[in-house]
Amino acid sequence: MAKRTLSAHRSWLTSANDPATDFPLSHLPYGAFEAGNERHLCVAIGTHLLDLHQCASANLLPRSLVAACQAPVLNPLMALGPRAWALLRETITTLLHASAPPDRRQATEAALHSITGTTLLRPVEIPNYTDFYASIHHATRVGAIFRPDQPLLPNYKHVPIGYHGRASSILPSGIPIFRPVGQTRPTTPGGMPPFGPTKSLDYELELAFYIGQPNSLGMPIPIGKAHQHLFGVSLLNDWSARDIQSWEYQPLGPFLGKSFATTVSPWVTPIAALEPFRAPTSPREKSDPKPLPYLRSAIDQKQGSLDVQLEVFLLTPTMRRNKLDPFLLSRSSAKDLFWTPAQLIAHHSSNGCNLPIGDLIATGTISGPKLTSAGCLLELTHNGTQPLALPTGETRGFLADGDEVILRGFCARPGHPRIGLGECRAAILPAHRSH
Amino acid sequence: MAKRTLSAHRSWLTSANDPATDFPLSHLPYGAFEAGNERHLCVAIGTHLLDLHQCASANLLPRSLVAACQAPVLNPLMALGPRAWALLRETITTLLHASAPPDRRQATEAALHSITGTTLLRPVEIPNYTDFYASIHHATRVGAIFRPDQPLLPNYKHVPIGYHGRASSILPSGIPIFRPVGQTRPTTPGGMPPFGPTKSLDYELELAFYIGQPNSLGMPIPIGKAHQHLFGVSLLNDWSARDIQSWEYQPLGPFLGKSFATTVSPWVTPIAALEPFRAPTSPREKSDPKPLPYLRSAIDQKQGSLDVQLEVFLLTPTMRRNKLDPFLLSRSSAKDLFWTPAQLIAHHSSNGCNLPIGDLIATGTISGPKLTSAGCLLELTHNGTQPLALPTGETRGFLADGDEVILRGFCARPGHPRIGLGECRAAILPAHRSH
Repeated sequence: MAKRTLSAHRSWLTSANDPATDFPLSHLPYGAFEAGNERHLCVAIGTHLLDLHQCASANLLPRSLVAACQAPVLNPLMALGPRAWALLRETITTLLHASAPPDRRQATEAALHSITGTTLLRPVEIPNYTDFYASIHHATRVGAIFRPDQPLLPNYKHVPIGYHGRASSILPSGIPIFRPVGQTRPTTPGGMPPFGPTKSLDYELELAFYIGQPNSLGMPIPIGKAHQHLFGVSLLNDWSARDIQSWEYQPLGPFLGKSFATTVSPWVTPIAALEPFRAPTSPREKSDPKPLPYLRSAIDQKQGSLDVQLEVFLLTPTMRRNKLDPFLLSRSSAKDLFWTPAQLIAHHSSNGCNLPIGDLIATGTISGPKLTSAGCLLELTHNGTQPLALPTGETRGFLADGDEVILRGFCARPGHPRIGLGECRAAILPAHRSH
Repeated sequence: MAKRTLSAHRSWLTSANDPATDFPLSHLPYGAFEAGNERHLCVAIGTHLLDLHQCASANLLPRSLVAACQAPVLNPLMALGPRAWALLRETITTLLHASAPPDRRQATEAALHSITGTTLLRPVEIPNYTDFYASIHHATRVGAIFRPDQPLLPNYKHVPIGYHGRASSILPSGIPIFRPVGQTRPTTPGGMPPFGPTKSLDYELELAFYIGQPNSLGMPIPIGKAHQHLFGVSLLNDWSARDIQSWEYQPLGPFLGKSFATTVSPWVTPIAALEPFRAPTSPREKSDPKPLPYLRSAIDQKQGSLDVQLEVFLLTPTMRRNKLDPFLLSRSSAKDLFWTPAQLIAHHSSNGCNLPIGDLIATGTISGPKLTSAGCLLELTHNGTQPLALPTGETRGFLADGDEVILRGFCARPGHPRIGLGECRAAILPAHRSH
């Protein structure tokens, strides 16, 4: 079985068959890159990217897909719907498969470019960005820091908690982030709030889901149909300034503590590539309430979660100078989330809210049950009070200027080629002096 | 003085000189309407609208403005910047002025259409929507309902509190709103949350500011330059389901309790038309802290507020059936807001957040110091516990199906023609049965 599966995914491109590659033939994530003065869509394969614009020009794609594959962003392809997504995936798989006839192979090879040296762009036009709070381990540990008496609020196990994020400041991986400035809590009660660069800049390790099919305003998406609205998955870093956030967030939630930047990884893994890595929803405690009917479906309970393993690395200027590898801060898995992607979509639209094509729905910080699986420094350092010791002798309560945060994600199960979500990375620049 | 000002604004269109009109020559708000199968931009004048697309075709507008005036939304005009906005306003004023030469007048008359019978559309493509909480009277009264011990949180007088709203569900005036369904607080502690149509559907009376010039990500807008980024003002109704909101909003703020719909009025009053109606910022109490330097400028303190008077009316099905006028629920003024538009813009961008062209920044509910000036039912009925008696013998704690809410706004000062912001209205439809 394992062998058959693997040979079914054999490509004529050697690097695609490397067991360590993020991008085997079974993956085919979508991206966009700078092609001269244009933006071209592409898929990643082994060490290369396949230029979809060029494939379309070379008549390698079905006519119905040409316009969408020559668009500068994925939104027109998303608009064509799940059948078109399957057709494109099938077409590309055939072109890159070991059994492709020599003439097709040659034409396809002409549209392949090494990923090294190309500039990857944000592949989706994102109209709205929503961030959830789907990790109960994150919610509990963060709650314990700020509300030791009641770490988890009474609504948590009933309502997938979320908020509207800031769509305008979503950046592709690789663009450095300015340390934000802002107001923080006065050091004495009744005193004036300090205003300056944040002292508690944090990352948040998240998965992001792209909406591929819209619903109309006023028409909720039933949980049984939520998967039809899902196009694909990326990594997301929801940068957070904890001191700004903690002073501003009552009573209306996070605002400037988050809106200065959010980084997304360049590759969008099609939801079809994740089918082999589905998992049952995270087991609830016996005393936990059942989800309300609009958040419940047998198939979602059985295989609604995604077993995506996640890692956060830190590269400090000292590590960079000494040519050291980035340091692993933590590991977690999306299968530990309390809510599934289908539950997030069903909940989001349950009041009639419309989710247009390209909308980004993020999970919130993905933390596991152990402290070593915490997806942000707020948890790992107990709000900066217990700094991490790094192998360089440095310590970090929160991020320092020059630090680079690298998120990675992958799926690995016996009998299936490993797939990797690539990297979501960005470095911290000092705050502007314009204030 | 008064006479000279008024004669400076005399139009050859009689209805524009009616002292009761919302749209005298000194106003010229922008809108968009259905012109056959197209969307045309227009300005309102008296009982009519002037089709800008048609004006451009008839060579009545400067060449530099033609493309923007023939666009389907105002965003391209916004992108041209304040000089272009002033040029267009001056051009239209000349065309419509009593002193216009007969040939120009005739050509302009051909582009005039009665507003009655035309379908007005949402005139701006809105990339992001932010909602503030700028009325201290609203914040204090709502706080008193939920936190009698501490109505106003310690951050309120330092931080312009705001949150990211939902851009996808912003609707033009006149489109009915489906009553949303959702989870609400369990009736017994530890019980299951009810799920169904909201029982506490509310409106919120707000002003909305459209961003006309963007800032780059990472580059805050200094308060002294904030006015250059402001294009115009509309009315906004931030529909709210109080029971859904109160159960979901901890700890990340309002989400599904707001995201089902937001209504904006069709006319965008250019900020230039509001110059005569500027006011000093609302006087602070002696014990109040000074705004931090990034929120302070002498000119903003002196004339940063806008004296826009606001009214909310309710039209119930019974009133409609009996052909009664809508009932006045409350009156307030934007000059009572604790924060000015410039302070909201400076704060929003202070962390480097970018505000693209077309972004909508709303004030939050505008309530005055007296209960009769409260801008939502939550305040007026003390969360539904003290229902309002209507002249029909009906009562309302919150909105009923079939109710229509009408917001109006106007500016009136001696020596200046009164200008009106028009209406922002929508009726409530029963909840869908799809759940």
